[in-house]
Amino acid sequence: MSRIVVLRWGHRPQRDARLTTHVALSARALGANGIILSDIEDNRIKETIEEVTRNWGGPFFLEMGTPWRKAVENWKENGGIVVHLTAYGENIETSNVLKRIKAAKKGVLILAGSQKVPKEFYSEHVSDFNVAIGNQPHSECASLAVFLDRFLEGRSLARSFENARMEIIPQKSGKKILKRDESRH
Amino acid sequence: MSRIVVLRWGHRPQRDARLTTHVALSARALGANGIILSDIEDNRIKETIEEVTRNWGGPFFLEMGTPWRKAVENWKENGGIVVHLTAYGENIETSNVLKRIKAAKKGVLILAGSQKVPKEFYSEHVSDFNVAIGNQPHSECASLAVFLDRFLEGRSLARSFENARMEIIPQKSGKKILKRDESRH
Repeated sequence: MSRIVVLRWGHRPQRDARLTTHVALSARALGANGIILSDIEDNRIKETIEEVTRNWGGPFFLEMGTPWRKAVENWKENGGIVVHLTAYGENIETSNVLKRIKAAKKGVLILAGSQKVPKEFYSEHVSDFNVAIGNQPHSECASLAVFLDRFLEGRSLARSFENARMEIIPQKSGKKILKRDESRH
Repeated sequence: MSRIVVLRWGHRPQRDARLTTHVALSARALGANGIILSDIEDNRIKETIEEVTRNWGGPFFLEMGTPWRKAVENWKENGGIVVHLTAYGENIETSNVLKRIKAAKKGVLILAGSQKVPKEFYSEHVSDFNVAIGNQPHSECASLAVFLDRFLEGRSLARSFENARMEIIPQKSGKKILKRDESRH
């Protein structure tokens, strides 16, 4: 399967801590290989995500501090394409944009910004595709989730994670968690 | 189409302002009729959502302060079913839970909580269905988005909103907004 990485732009440690954590958890749960927190470092986010991966399995990486431009350049040099999620882009439901992205059969770097992303994000020099999960004011967390679910055709929701200490056993009602013997790790 | 309302439980005005706003925006963008902020009032959220609906169209309502138990009882008395989104529930991808929810052909109240929802949420007295958008730690915003997208089979992303002052014209690159003559409103 093609490599999928999320680039989270515009994180402000105080204000965005919870939202960025939600974006990272969604990236992991819905099938991305990792997330880049661009242009900034935030060890609280790193610790949270590492703890989740330690308990619930991986692989899933978090990279911090890389300038967004550098991350995009690296990605393109390695043959990948860049998909910017924005309400201004081509509608994933009414256009053929998802079909074109799939047809590229390349690794995808997903730019998940906020309202005030650099103007360049919208240009074809940066983003090969600007994709709208509906052309309405929205949430980058929700957009990312729906994009991954559609791009991977739901497969990621059925996936097992490696080296998980804890695993949920789905229930019609109530909660059930399987805890593995930690000595095996 | 059946009525769909989101019940947001556990909102704390300072800590959750942005996340709850994202949940509400996602509910609106992905096809819910409205959102109930249960057990608490928060006028900042109300103003934000009202401004979005004024500018980008509706209908979409926000109700605040109703005790969650009352909201659930009212919903059931009116013949609706309750769907609780939780990582502990039946997996939307690997089980037939979505098919069963659709087969009910009833209005759906979606409980979008946080990690510490009341234990009763998991019981059959409250939730007719406990649904996991993957059995992994996750985001209620992401879960809500994927649930609505699957439940409505993507139709909401193509929908037009009524009385919108602003409308995005989807673009392959760049931004384009159509502003309507406000005197018509």
